[in-house]
Amino acid sequence: MPNTEDIRMRGFRERSTVEEALAAALDGVKALPAERVPVTGSTGRVLAGNVVSGIDVPAFRRAMMDGYAVRAEDTYGASAYNPIPLRVVGSSMPGHPSDAPVVPGACVRIMTGAPIPEGADAVLKVEDTRRSGNLVEATAPVPVGRNAARIGEDVRVGDPVLASGTVLLPQDVGILVAIAADPVDVVRRPVVRVIVSGDELVPPGEAPAGHRIVDSNSPMLAALVERDGGIPEVVRLPDERSAMEEALVEEGADVIVTSGAASVGSEDRVPVLVGELGDLAVHGITMRPSAPTGVGTVRGVRTIILPGNPVACLAAYDFFAGPVIRTLGGRPSGWPYLTVTRTLSRRLSSQVGRTDYARIVVEGDTARPIAISGSSILSSVTGASGFVVVPAESEGYAEGTEVTIHCYRGTCVS
Amino acid sequence: MPNTEDIRMRGFRERSTVEEALAAALDGVKALPAERVPVTGSTGRVLAGNVVSGIDVPAFRRAMMDGYAVRAEDTYGASAYNPIPLRVVGSSMPGHPSDAPVVPGACVRIMTGAPIPEGADAVLKVEDTRRSGNLVEATAPVPVGRNAARIGEDVRVGDPVLASGTVLLPQDVGILVAIAADPVDVVRRPVVRVIVSGDELVPPGEAPAGHRIVDSNSPMLAALVERDGGIPEVVRLPDERSAMEEALVEEGADVIVTSGAASVGSEDRVPVLVGELGDLAVHGITMRPSAPTGVGTVRGVRTIILPGNPVACLAAYDFFAGPVIRTLGGRPSGWPYLTVTRTLSRRLSSQVGRTDYARIVVEGDTARPIAISGSSILSSVTGASGFVVVPAESEGYAEGTEVTIHCYRGTCVS
Repeated sequence: MPNTEDIRMRGFRERSTVEEALAAALDGVKALPAERVPVTGSTGRVLAGNVVSGIDVPAFRRAMMDGYAVRAEDTYGASAYNPIPLRVVGSSMPGHPSDAPVVPGACVRIMTGAPIPEGADAVLKVEDTRRSGNLVEATAPVPVGRNAARIGEDVRVGDPVLASGTVLLPQDVGILVAIAADPVDVVRRPVVRVIVSGDELVPPGEAPAGHRIVDSNSPMLAALVERDGGIPEVVRLPDERSAMEEALVEEGADVIVTSGAASVGSEDRVPVLVGELGDLAVHGITMRPSAPTGVGTVRGVRTIILPGNPVACLAAYDFFAGPVIRTLGGRPSGWPYLTVTRTLSRRLSSQVGRTDYARIVVEGDTARPIAISGSSILSSVTGASGFVVVPAESEGYAEGTEVTIHCYRGTCVS
Repeated sequence: MPNTEDIRMRGFRERSTVEEALAAALDGVKALPAERVPVTGSTGRVLAGNVVSGIDVPAFRRAMMDGYAVRAEDTYGASAYNPIPLRVVGSSMPGHPSDAPVVPGACVRIMTGAPIPEGADAVLKVEDTRRSGNLVEATAPVPVGRNAARIGEDVRVGDPVLASGTVLLPQDVGILVAIAADPVDVVRRPVVRVIVSGDELVPPGEAPAGHRIVDSNSPMLAALVERDGGIPEVVRLPDERSAMEEALVEEGADVIVTSGAASVGSEDRVPVLVGELGDLAVHGITMRPSAPTGVGTVRGVRTIILPGNPVACLAAYDFFAGPVIRTLGGRPSGWPYLTVTRTLSRRLSSQVGRTDYARIVVEGDTARPIAISGSSILSSVTGASGFVVVPAESEGYAEGTEVTIHCYRGTCVS
């Protein structure tokens, strides 16, 4: 166990790069085990294994049109001028098949989705018939198989239907239900304990007063966790060592995200505690904002120490916590943002040796860096279209340079 | 009220175009009234009005670094070789301000986020100091205002913060909480009654048997409704006129979506009923799949009649129901899919006078149309990357043509 005073005093003299911190965050992290859930409501969940159909869909020959189930050859030569009469011997409705088979010269009235009776090999659509008492006249021929779905036409027994890792869409839910692969095995959603601490914090929904501020980080982090498929569990604490210790060691979390008390002052209990209770792999990174980020592990649970300033908190979440949560949930670990490329309308300065998370406003074909760089200026991210990551080896980009922008709002173009 | 027999018999002789059907679906539809909700958990909701801040953030001068609150001029000329001693007269912690003001030659120990005491005009960071008993030595100068957040630096009273219509992101939730605009007015989510009917349907989770099939449309539609910000309310009915009538007229839905029993046969009660109970504006459209789609209004509630075949159901939902639900919820009515452009690796045929919803597999730089066009082949949409809409005036596209693909899975590139 490292010495507490060492951690406290070391400050950020041994900063890690963004790449080192991300590697530490993801070290040993893999998808959680599967759980079995009803398919209804499983949209957005991640398949934990390949799904192979155990049944044929459809499992019986079905009519694809409303009309008459016929023997195709009985209709050959039919036309409006040469109608061919057929005896109606029954009726087949969805869920209510016809008892009567279709013998030569006969037909069965049939609705879309209904079983095609024995003997029939096509469905003559209603538009190609005339009703004449108890008879039906075919006014056009129909080839064998027309308007008749074959058994297994959609899915056959043994067909691979969806691959492991698929994030389920509405139509995937439809096909899983249709093949009766319900319930289905999906990757368990990671439980993410979000710990915010600070004597200055009042809970969301209350008004700030005096020298207190509203805890805006926990609802933001909870929303980010949900976006990334996790289940947030928010814990709000005073600046008290014992409370923080308890929140760090309590069982039930798959990953812990803390916010606040991450800097190097003596009140900054979180990195110290993580080092005492477990292993503090990274504290302090060469990034702006978010320098006071840390990465550790407490009782086997990866713990990401985020700064308390809201922009730094958001950026560090996206760089380090998001990839861990998505990986645990079986999702791709990369950025969850779409990208666009635009030309800078102004110089974007950075410092060699430091990764910058630069907020950008897209204006038509150009991108304008937001001048305000303060890590506490939340309006710089709510007003931005997205951000550009300037790597440590770059000193920024000149006006006119084409840059890749990660878009906050799905698309950078509003 | 139109005559029932007329509707039944008319069949699809008077088909509407896709554009006419969409216009009928959206006719008179506008965003629902606002409701007030807690900001925590409101991600993805749509702001019902502009939000203007009622407070300054921060509401007091805050330290941006750990260190010492000083009078900047006291540090001028300080260096490692010429350290300037300052008396520590107090301590300011977040939520716990210093009682002592900073007088000339004095300083107050301060943590990030803590209030800057009276008399101080800068924060000297801890790295630029040396502790020496009860004194602190400044080893570098600090300019006025450095590391000190001004009142209203992030948001000022009266600042516009977020615009009406904004779909709330995690950081938007953060700023709304921070300015105490909590609860907040958002557009009410539309309640979407999803009515599926058919004697052949067994509920999701059960195995199909005999001539029965699993109702795969209602869980798919419920997922689509949720994607579009609606609250689905699924009603599964046998083919019974009275049950359907009740489901169509019962109060509480903002929009109704039906699936199944939409064709022209005599069992197809839904369009007939909609015509009897209200107004059937459209029945039958020049589109493949989804020809049996209908649009009507029952007791003031827009009612979209979707085909029962799953692919047709999905396509008709996306063309006609989705835009209505999104508009009611205050969202943009356009496609919710991202688009990519690719070159066709095979001819994509269509028929002049008919809009086609053609499923496509993206393969590198090319797009391959899926040959299977059956409206019941759900595997054609779970296996597809997305779809191309071929407008009615087109007879399709030759191999090598560049087409725009709407991507099912966020991106067409997996």
